Amino acid sequence: MQSFQLLSEKFNLHFSERNPPLVPASLYAPHEYILQLGGKRIRPVLCLMGNELFDEIHEDAWHVGAAIELFHNFTLIHDDIMDKAPLRRGQATVHEKFGTDTALLAGDVMFVSALEELNKATPSRQPVLLNIFNETARKVCEGQQYDMDYEKASGVGLDEYMNMITLKTSVTMAASLKMGAIIGGALERNQNLIYEFGKKLGIAFQVQDDYLDAFGEPERTGKQPGGDILANKKTFLVIHVLEQGNPEQKKLLQNLQRSGEKNKVERIISLYKDCGADAWARQLKDRYMDEAMQHLEDIAVITARKKPLKDLAEFLVIRNH
Amino acid sequence: MQSFQLLSEKFNLHFSERNPPLVPASLYAPHEYILQLGGKRIRPVLCLMGNELFDEIHEDAWHVGAAIELFHNFTLIHDDIMDKAPLRRGQATVHEKFGTDTALLAGDVMFVSALEELNKATPSRQPVLLNIFNETARKVCEGQQYDMDYEKASGVGLDEYMNMITLKTSVTMAASLKMGAIIGGALERNQNLIYEFGKKLGIAFQVQDDYLDAFGEPERTGKQPGGDILANKKTFLVIHVLEQGNPEQKKLLQNLQRSGEKNKVERIISLYKDCGADAWARQLKDRYMDEAMQHLEDIAVITARKKPLKDLAEFLVIRNH
Repeated sequence: MQSFQLLSEKFNLHFSERNPPLVPASLYAPHEYILQLGGKRIRPVLCLMGNELFDEIHEDAWHVGAAIELFHNFTLIHDDIMDKAPLRRGQATVHEKFGTDTALLAGDVMFVSALEELNKATPSRQPVLLNIFNETARKVCEGQQYDMDYEKASGVGLDEYMNMITLKTSVTMAASLKMGAIIGGALERNQNLIYEFGKKLGIAFQVQDDYLDAFGEPERTGKQPGGDILANKKTFLVIHVLEQGNPEQKKLLQNLQRSGEKNKVERIISLYKDCGADAWARQLKDRYMDEAMQHLEDIAVITARKKPLKDLAEFLVIRNH
Repeated sequence: MQSFQLLSEKFNLHFSERNPPLVPASLYAPHEYILQLGGKRIRPVLCLMGNELFDEIHEDAWHVGAAIELFHNFTLIHDDIMDKAPLRRGQATVHEKFGTDTALLAGDVMFVSALEELNKATPSRQPVLLNIFNETARKVCEGQQYDMDYEKASGVGLDEYMNMITLKTSVTMAASLKMGAIIGGALERNQNLIYEFGKKLGIAFQVQDDYLDAFGEPERTGKQPGGDILANKKTFLVIHVLEQGNPEQKKLLQNLQRSGEKNKVERIISLYKDCGADAWARQLKDRYMDEAMQHLEDIAVITARKKPLKDLAEFLVIRNH
């Protein structure tokens, strides 16, 4: 059983040994660029851990992990175009650096690279893996569309927002684990449990992400505080105020969002507190985290094998109790 | 052995019986829109004919045909974004009608739909089909990148232009035939021959397309004459003048391309004739068409089975001798 740190390092080594095409450079330079921006490689490690929960890591898990990582980076390139994001991990986004047309196409071909990695897995296993891969890719696209639709919509309910987050963020984590579990020989019940574990962990992670944007300490999160607030992004906190706040609080939030005043971030954070959004978000996160852990508990393998996944979950999402 | 017309109608019937997702409508409306714009469904029919050349049509060929058609439409959506094209088959392009962000994402998810169709084929055959599908998708992306690069470049040689056309247009036709042939049980030699047939047919088709833009009769082509000339698009004719014209002719072409004068189209067409580009293009087309037909000849099945493919090739590309 190997730790997140170790598997992450091993994955990066494997990943760097791929021999991706380099010509035409105008198409492939963006690949090298975004992949060297780093990232924690959480998804491929989830695939490796999903495998190792049930059996020794099989060659297929490295390929599927690479497929997931490439797919994830494809979505980052295209999402950044749609979101007109200037920065990714503190550096220029692909479309900022290489132009939108090249970014679009470089994203497309990165999707193809993901499929090529999947195509390296044991042939008899490919149809099942491709099925999960496709299902996940479709959901991620649908999540991104809902995200764009909701940015323009005035009223978005918690259920709708939760569904969007699940599609956009959680299912990739869930699918990574499930594909790993399938490679490890897990039977259907365990496959479903690990999928649900990943899905709920993903939701808890996103709730925490939204929470930390307002209430996190910049020196710990490494992010500009209030970034979501300044971008008027819909978050769990916004949804809570709009659903649970009194009419004055809702009105105030909408007015503050439209305003360009200097202390906008502080005033909205203070409004969140008045509505109890901070405590509510912490509880919501804990609830999903507890449910995730329960699914992990229910998987029929000895507890010792679950430790790396448990550690990783607790590293990703800090519980408050 | 069934004709193009019959197979095209049958394919459209099969294709219309798919049950694609409809929600969120903001994501899926563009799919219905572009697919109902029509098109001749040449690629899926090539897949069906590739199958029927060797054996009765297998269920898999309908799925792979659908996969190819969806993939082709995905490339049309994204290419139109990159080319800033306002019209496709006489109607607004997807990004014009639905906005660029939605078009980008609708393209992505159409790629996923293509993979889902591939995933419906007989499992044991999927890895081989996925391999050809991926290889083709990568080449098409590379072709589009070369196309964009060459639009900005001053000097592009015939070899480079030919390679770009092969990647962007021909390999999809070639791969459609090859995947059909594999489904029909063709062995490697015949798979390769049908691939080469498709590749050369595709090149001949593109040479003809470039030729007809300048020398076609609008009432027969159904296209605005000189569209490529007005868009300063690189074509086989442009490449020929720049490679084979004398210094004055090259200079004149470049000046005319930059100019906004009213009779630009007529003057460039007249320059093409002075350089012999029309006769050269007709010969080039015939040469590729002859080579394509020779590959078809060499395939080891009785001649009668080859008739629909021969008819289709001759319908797509009219020979001059």
